[in-house]
Amino acid sequence: MYVGIDLGGTNIAVGLVDAEYRILAKGSVPTGRKREFSEIMQDAAGLIQRLLDETGRKVADIEVIGMGSPGVPDVEKKEIVYANTFPNIHHVDAQSELQKYFPGVPVYVENDANAAAYGESLAGAASDVDNAVVVTLGTGVGGGVIINKKIYAGFNHCASELGHTVLNFNGPHCGCGRNGCFEVYASATALIKQTAEMIEKYPNSCIHQMIDGDPSKINGKTAFDAARQGDEAGKKIVENYITYLGMGLANVVNAFQPEVLVIGGGICKEGDYLLNPLRDYLIHHIYTTEVPVTQLRVAKLGNDAGIIGAAMLWKNQQ
Amino acid sequence: MYVGIDLGGTNIAVGLVDAEYRILAKGSVPTGRKREFSEIMQDAAGLIQRLLDETGRKVADIEVIGMGSPGVPDVEKKEIVYANTFPNIHHVDAQSELQKYFPGVPVYVENDANAAAYGESLAGAASDVDNAVVVTLGTGVGGGVIINKKIYAGFNHCASELGHTVLNFNGPHCGCGRNGCFEVYASATALIKQTAEMIEKYPNSCIHQMIDGDPSKINGKTAFDAARQGDEAGKKIVENYITYLGMGLANVVNAFQPEVLVIGGGICKEGDYLLNPLRDYLIHHIYTTEVPVTQLRVAKLGNDAGIIGAAMLWKNQQ
Repeated sequence: MYVGIDLGGTNIAVGLVDAEYRILAKGSVPTGRKREFSEIMQDAAGLIQRLLDETGRKVADIEVIGMGSPGVPDVEKKEIVYANTFPNIHHVDAQSELQKYFPGVPVYVENDANAAAYGESLAGAASDVDNAVVVTLGTGVGGGVIINKKIYAGFNHCASELGHTVLNFNGPHCGCGRNGCFEVYASATALIKQTAEMIEKYPNSCIHQMIDGDPSKINGKTAFDAARQGDEAGKKIVENYITYLGMGLANVVNAFQPEVLVIGGGICKEGDYLLNPLRDYLIHHIYTTEVPVTQLRVAKLGNDAGIIGAAMLWKNQQ
Repeated sequence: MYVGIDLGGTNIAVGLVDAEYRILAKGSVPTGRKREFSEIMQDAAGLIQRLLDETGRKVADIEVIGMGSPGVPDVEKKEIVYANTFPNIHHVDAQSELQKYFPGVPVYVENDANAAAYGESLAGAASDVDNAVVVTLGTGVGGGVIINKKIYAGFNHCASELGHTVLNFNGPHCGCGRNGCFEVYASATALIKQTAEMIEKYPNSCIHQMIDGDPSKINGKTAFDAARQGDEAGKKIVENYITYLGMGLANVVNAFQPEVLVIGGGICKEGDYLLNPLRDYLIHHIYTTEVPVTQLRVAKLGNDAGIIGAAMLWKNQQ
């Protein structure tokens, strides 16, 4: 039995996973990301122990622990080199911290987007193909590239930051230091911002009522819900957003030509209302359609992808 | 002994290559790209025969023939599916055509940018590393990705069209159908256009004299030569061009994190005048410098990269 940890900015999610990629038990606790790394790992270990207890398992049943983390891992040293939003994560040794509680259990670390892509590749939307790219639309835009069923992370294990490829060099500033990154246009955060901006120009938009006039109530569904009701502002927001997303995804296709391109994140719940125009955009903007083209699919595993991918990192290194 | 063919829009270049990647003999003939594919291959075969004769070799000495071609190959069928600027290349069978002249000799086909990247990886600027990306700045911007010493071409053998990733979605139209592609900003063609446009605003620029007032005399060196003389227009053109190039290359680094990023094309002859500001741009725009960073290098083999890479395609498929 394998343990997967998905270390998020808000929650630490943990799952016990079997060799068929099934989650046997899972749970989460708040991360408290500003704390010391040792405290964060203590809570992760406590959660693992609770799941063991709840399912009648022992520490000896754990074969390995894998962890997906924001930022950049040092896969060989089992360290997290840094993780943007965690002030105390800087060359921290994940294996040593976790082995305090689980002596002798091997630990694997990976970037969280890569771990989630690996999960989708093993057990999710890309399980039937060898080459896939997974793009997750959340607070940011995460990218994970799978080549021959393994994570492709570049020589320094820092790839693939697809969210930080520039789509418009005259565009708004991005947290990474560049301007007009894919993430600035296609994340859920970006969609919320685009919604807030557009409705200022449409005083009669139904969105104002939907959010009781309170822009802090806008979420990633707001514009889609309004568009479905025929709201002009909503339709315009959705149309623009799909164009931005399509541009970034067409860049990914032209660069990688994966057999399957998986998109994940809450926005994907919009289903065909999102996917049909997005597929139409892609077919007109990818480099060629004279050869078989990349299939666009929606992620299957949701948040479990990160847990399953992390639990199976030992396999990625085989 | 292996034969490499680099099928270009202007010339067919052919070389005889040994197992140590040395070119034993080479030559070229005009392509006549609007002709039938069989005629083009007849000329390539004639050139091969001439090189055999000149070096006292026989057809029986040829182990394989490899060909790099613009456009998209079907590696398994040994076909070229299409090649943009060749009106009569559409699902043409390269092996059958070449075997008319060299019966029984196996033929390999590949995209020309991928073949050139493979050449640089085997015998050129990236010979010491496993993972590299080669970006060639010519009429267009070509991309070739090497992962674990093999060409990465995606599931449909259509990757990696790095020149057709969008840098500025409000930018000028690109031949591929998109707007503001990397190629539109960073090709030699783009630099020439940028030079012509900038000097209109600078009537006193020394460039007007350099080209005898004839914009058709502008080439990829013009702006660099003027900049080195302190010409304001020249300096501005070069500064803008390096920024555009840097943006596209930073996108490549963030997506692939190759150990080595090789740039090729005549512009690279500008040496440190190009490379120093380009390295400076990259270090400030790539995703992180907390881990080892991609090394920027200049291609070593020039036009020979395509010949050597093509001749060695059999090795890529092993």
